[in-house]
Amino acid sequence: MASTLDVEAKYELITRRLQEVLGGDLIKAILAEGRLPKAYWGTAPTGRPHIGYFAPLTKIADFLRAGVEVKILLADVHAFLDNLKAPLELVAHRTKYYEFVLRTVFTSLGIPTSKLIFVQGSDYQLTREYNLDNYRLCATVTEHDAKKAGAEVVKQVESPLISGLLYPGLQALDEQYLGVDFQFGGVDQRKIFTFAELYLPRLGYAKRAHLMNPMVPGLMGGKMSSSDPDSKIDFLDPPEAVKRKIKKAFCEEGNITENGLLAFINAVLIPISQLRIERRKGETGVDSEEGQGAIGDQNPFVDDDAPEGTVFTIRREGKFGGPPSHYKDYQELEDDFSAKKVHPGDLKTAVNKAIDSLLAPIRKAFAESPEWQQIEKLAYPDPNAKTEPKKKKEKVYHPPPPGKGKNAQVTKVSAESSEPPPPIGENTQPGAAGEL
Amino acid sequence: MASTLDVEAKYELITRRLQEVLGGDLIKAILAEGRLPKAYWGTAPTGRPHIGYFAPLTKIADFLRAGVEVKILLADVHAFLDNLKAPLELVAHRTKYYEFVLRTVFTSLGIPTSKLIFVQGSDYQLTREYNLDNYRLCATVTEHDAKKAGAEVVKQVESPLISGLLYPGLQALDEQYLGVDFQFGGVDQRKIFTFAELYLPRLGYAKRAHLMNPMVPGLMGGKMSSSDPDSKIDFLDPPEAVKRKIKKAFCEEGNITENGLLAFINAVLIPISQLRIERRKGETGVDSEEGQGAIGDQNPFVDDDAPEGTVFTIRREGKFGGPPSHYKDYQELEDDFSAKKVHPGDLKTAVNKAIDSLLAPIRKAFAESPEWQQIEKLAYPDPNAKTEPKKKKEKVYHPPPPGKGKNAQVTKVSAESSEPPPPIGENTQPGAAGEL
Repeated sequence: MASTLDVEAKYELITRRLQEVLGGDLIKAILAEGRLPKAYWGTAPTGRPHIGYFAPLTKIADFLRAGVEVKILLADVHAFLDNLKAPLELVAHRTKYYEFVLRTVFTSLGIPTSKLIFVQGSDYQLTREYNLDNYRLCATVTEHDAKKAGAEVVKQVESPLISGLLYPGLQALDEQYLGVDFQFGGVDQRKIFTFAELYLPRLGYAKRAHLMNPMVPGLMGGKMSSSDPDSKIDFLDPPEAVKRKIKKAFCEEGNITENGLLAFINAVLIPISQLRIERRKGETGVDSEEGQGAIGDQNPFVDDDAPEGTVFTIRREGKFGGPPSHYKDYQELEDDFSAKKVHPGDLKTAVNKAIDSLLAPIRKAFAESPEWQQIEKLAYPDPNAKTEPKKKKEKVYHPPPPGKGKNAQVTKVSAESSEPPPPIGENTQPGAAGEL
Repeated sequence: MASTLDVEAKYELITRRLQEVLGGDLIKAILAEGRLPKAYWGTAPTGRPHIGYFAPLTKIADFLRAGVEVKILLADVHAFLDNLKAPLELVAHRTKYYEFVLRTVFTSLGIPTSKLIFVQGSDYQLTREYNLDNYRLCATVTEHDAKKAGAEVVKQVESPLISGLLYPGLQALDEQYLGVDFQFGGVDQRKIFTFAELYLPRLGYAKRAHLMNPMVPGLMGGKMSSSDPDSKIDFLDPPEAVKRKIKKAFCEEGNITENGLLAFINAVLIPISQLRIERRKGETGVDSEEGQGAIGDQNPFVDDDAPEGTVFTIRREGKFGGPPSHYKDYQELEDDFSAKKVHPGDLKTAVNKAIDSLLAPIRKAFAESPEWQQIEKLAYPDPNAKTEPKKKKEKVYHPPPPGKGKNAQVTKVSAESSEPPPPIGENTQPGAAGEL
């Protein structure tokens, strides 16, 4: 039975397609004892999550299928800090919005979420014990080490803020306070992860394993920018918006290095295709319920008549028409694109179709949930809405006087709290930057 | 009546002998409204407090006499962090020990302590609200500003720890969380104080006033050193130890610049003398109970037959004998010493006699308090005692592996938790360095 995966098969499922694993022996040892590892992945609920989140979530699906107990940390305290213009009340709405999106994505992938635990940073990051440990860590870690650890994920500005030095330590403590065996993130987190491996034992806590996804460039190819709403695809975008954005995406014939569409196929579409093919074969992971509650089309991104082993199909249409190409792995597709055997137009059409099928059940779930719709309005209020701003009872952060800061992060603070925060950067794993 | 001091008189009492006052108008405004200001002074309960503490405590006596509500922050969290080798349990004993000493000093000065409030840092510094504010501050303050603020009071080492950047912000937040109108400290705190004035308003909190005592060099003249137990005088030292230490103190004929004894007379003995003279005249401050519960000799350090206005008398004995010199203020004494009209031996004798009279009631109170004696044993256990160390239930800090740290602060951590921490530095106002 597929639900009785053995140690090797579970380890393979947990670590496949990762770019790097630190402490794999620890995970193997837990599996060998018949226990199931516990893991965490964190993201800060700031801007609207975009479909780049499919990459870590698809990998988390592997963890869940292998029986890993996964905690998703919605780092609300970090979101508040990263973006002092958003009061805690707004962050609380965004936290709920993120949970709606992430849960629905797992459901749409047919992954039972019984082992999935959502945790808010504020549940434990403001406790006496956590803060005492944070102080202990601050009295142990040098500025130099903290700076080095955050070099790739903390915004590098002319006048860095103290908070940038705290993040690596807080992320290390999260491993202890969430009680996990490993942390998952993008490979841009590597220095943060090795920092945690070095410093947690100095506080008397266990060293954890670290599993790293490759970095996925933005789907659109170019820089994602908050001033260009077309630079990223939202989970709730209607089909015409998806179509328009993909049409605008940079995708040059034969160019495989700057190609967000190819990267998305590799990181998201082929893994989801494989998941669906495996499930068809009865390989449902440890949870026999897998696939039963799935919403939306559960077909792989493969033509019905494709040969056995195909994970992605590209049809050729219009003036470049011809028989569809079937690929057994990503490399075959990349080779063909590099050799100009696949036209950008056909690639875009294939990706567009696949994304449509991924987003349809999410849009539908949103349309059917008045609660989620209400939260969406509260989490990302229309900046053009002319409603009277309601009086805030809570103390509000006062921005520094204009012209005061040489500091880019400080001067970015504005009184306009409804302006959406900048999206997660182009070369950043969602949740990686989000965590910070 | 002396107990109905008017605004000007109260302000004069609050600010006399200070080196600098920032925000004095704020204090005047509070007094003018008929309210009484609230103040705080902090010290970290680390090593045994020495008699240098008389300097800030004598000034705090002025605050209390003017009706100020004074909070004394025993910064146990800081003490724990400053000295990770001391477990929290030990710090808790030291916190109690400090309170015993400080309360007894006030009683020995005849100052009613009804308006004196002892607060432990851990009472509020580990709460949700405080920590969220700490994070907000860290997301507002640049590393540069924090480093600049701590330049004079945070140990400057090759590889500075993150904690050094946190201290200025924490000390600023203390003003808000202790609900005070002004903070008192040594003038070495000036940059920390101006930092607080700049940043508290950015969190939406009020800017406080800051009152600064001049720095007092160590009584012994030379560097105070933990390896030389004779470099400082303990509040509980027996008369023979006081005599031995003062005999060893550096005091060169005519040399007024490196002279810890003269500085002690200026900062402690003359103010106490004045306090006692004022009380004899019925000038008892706002509290009519002042002086009633005083323990020990309450005579000023002045001969009985000294002329009116004398605040300090130096007798001439032995081969340099002659009539005693009576001084109306410190400057007269300094001028005489500079002109070699006062012999170091006579100066030492006068200081010795005054310190003996100050410490006698404190030693007596200690001898009569089994509770204080018990706490003393727990707070500063004999490092040579051969008792079996009791098993600690709480998690203990694990020092980094030897040879790991370039960092002086980290490598100083040792497994020997009973070794006393280094004393407050030579040129440091007690409580100033203590706070950090």
